[in-house]
Amino acid sequence: MPLDRVAIVGVGLIGGSIGLALRERRLAAEVVGVGRRLDSLQKAHDRGAVNWTTTNLVEGVADADWVVVCTPVNLIADTVAAVAAVAPRATITDVGSTKAEICRELHRLRAAEHTVPERSPPADAEGPAETPEHEAAGALARQRFVGSHPLAGDHRTGPEFARADLLEGRVVVVTPEDSTPVGLVERVQGFWESLGAQVELLSPEEHDRALAATSHLPHLIAAALAASTPEEWLRLAARGWGDTTRIAAADPQLWTQIFLQNRAAVLDALRRFEHRLAQFDEAVAGGDPLALASALQEAKRIRDALGD
Amino acid sequence: MPLDRVAIVGVGLIGGSIGLALRERRLAAEVVGVGRRLDSLQKAHDRGAVNWTTTNLVEGVADADWVVVCTPVNLIADTVAAVAAVAPRATITDVGSTKAEICRELHRLRAAEHTVPERSPPADAEGPAETPEHEAAGALARQRFVGSHPLAGDHRTGPEFARADLLEGRVVVVTPEDSTPVGLVERVQGFWESLGAQVELLSPEEHDRALAATSHLPHLIAAALAASTPEEWLRLAARGWGDTTRIAAADPQLWTQIFLQNRAAVLDALRRFEHRLAQFDEAVAGGDPLALASALQEAKRIRDALGD
Repeated sequence: MPLDRVAIVGVGLIGGSIGLALRERRLAAEVVGVGRRLDSLQKAHDRGAVNWTTTNLVEGVADADWVVVCTPVNLIADTVAAVAAVAPRATITDVGSTKAEICRELHRLRAAEHTVPERSPPADAEGPAETPEHEAAGALARQRFVGSHPLAGDHRTGPEFARADLLEGRVVVVTPEDSTPVGLVERVQGFWESLGAQVELLSPEEHDRALAATSHLPHLIAAALAASTPEEWLRLAARGWGDTTRIAAADPQLWTQIFLQNRAAVLDALRRFEHRLAQFDEAVAGGDPLALASALQEAKRIRDALGD
Repeated sequence: MPLDRVAIVGVGLIGGSIGLALRERRLAAEVVGVGRRLDSLQKAHDRGAVNWTTTNLVEGVADADWVVVCTPVNLIADTVAAVAAVAPRATITDVGSTKAEICRELHRLRAAEHTVPERSPPADAEGPAETPEHEAAGALARQRFVGSHPLAGDHRTGPEFARADLLEGRVVVVTPEDSTPVGLVERVQGFWESLGAQVELLSPEEHDRALAATSHLPHLIAAALAASTPEEWLRLAARGWGDTTRIAAADPQLWTQIFLQNRAAVLDALRRFEHRLAQFDEAVAGGDPLALASALQEAKRIRDALGD
């Protein structure tokens, strides 16, 4: 077995699927499910996604050599910091849909830790001093955590939808910072590849700009479209409406946090969409068949590039 | 066999599927495919959707007791008028995605016919006089055509995607005008029900307002979303982007005509969407988790009402 004990913090769709894949591929001697809700832990255990479960984070991760944080995005930074503090051997990654804000939060957490053993910096220092205490505190997470984002979500959540093949052939974006050790990136890349995924390396900021366009904006648009549909006409909705609004069924709390964590990039993507929509609007309002056909052809070209 | 000869004018996805269903259910002694493109007619014949084919409309429909017009929406009114003139026995319907403009075009065609044998109306007549010639010209189509719209489209077109079960369990909207004979509506309703569909009766205008929201707007939004996505990030598009933009792959020419035929209702639906989108925009920009979660919850409620 390549890994000894893997702890999965948050055993929903993605966490449960990682557990199933690790066990099916015999990649870990033991998979531990850590969570807050007993019913989710029980379901993950029943599905065979984990060997045992606990609601106690320290108990779950202390002896792990690998920890995957699968909590909602607003809890990831705190959870990573806690894991780093109590699991001295663990390589740590996450599966959050946003990346840059998590890094900023971790830097703020480290900065806060730095202020505890306060010392005056030498008069000639450039920037904050790196005292031994600072290094020890910052190194806890900085040396052992790099973010990941498997592009394999679903509008359904919960371990009951977990599948051992969820990540097979999917892209996982791994998002090192400039200071992330190369060896750590390679370990995390190898982890996802061992589950059948393809890894793309992007900076946290580039990931967030791209995913704002390819994931977060579509969720916002799908939700606005669903919410703008008069309910008495829903019986006349066919496949087109169903496809276009499908992800509006996603968990509102999870997506609230994703939009807020990636606010600036989401708003940028929204401006690009509004600009395009105004062109379509103008072509329809002006009754201009050539402009409309040309705009639709451009949309089809981009959509066809993805395949069905 | 309930029907003798059914002519299908335009043997694409829907026309081909109607032919397959008629033949599989043994509802017509003969199904004729009428079209302009030999390769489509050949494909429809190869699929078994029609018994024989012709590019000559008069030859195809003259002896038919039933004609289904499956052309692009901008050609439907002219085709219906031509069929009415040469197929004296035929009950006529169509499958167009818009309905009111086709009725207006038919009324204009009739009005143009009316002006040919010009006569002065009696001085005391209220409104236009109904001379025998007027009645004969207007009656040609008015007594034998009522519009239909099967909600069973696909972003793929062409007889190669036709399926005998395409209409099974689907809604077909039938759109009588005030002047449409009740017996005609009942015949057309029975036709669609014999193919396994459920019929909804709506006025042409109500159909167009509803479908603007449930079909035409989603196409416009999907196209604008696809067109606004930077292509270098397409490799990071996962299922959500794929679902939300799927119908952007539809035929640009067909959809240009649909948007222009239903322009006013599409623009109304677009205004409702923009109003909702502005609420989401404001909640994200303002960093307001309660407003955002509430808006997403409302969208989810409406989307969940449709099912997966």
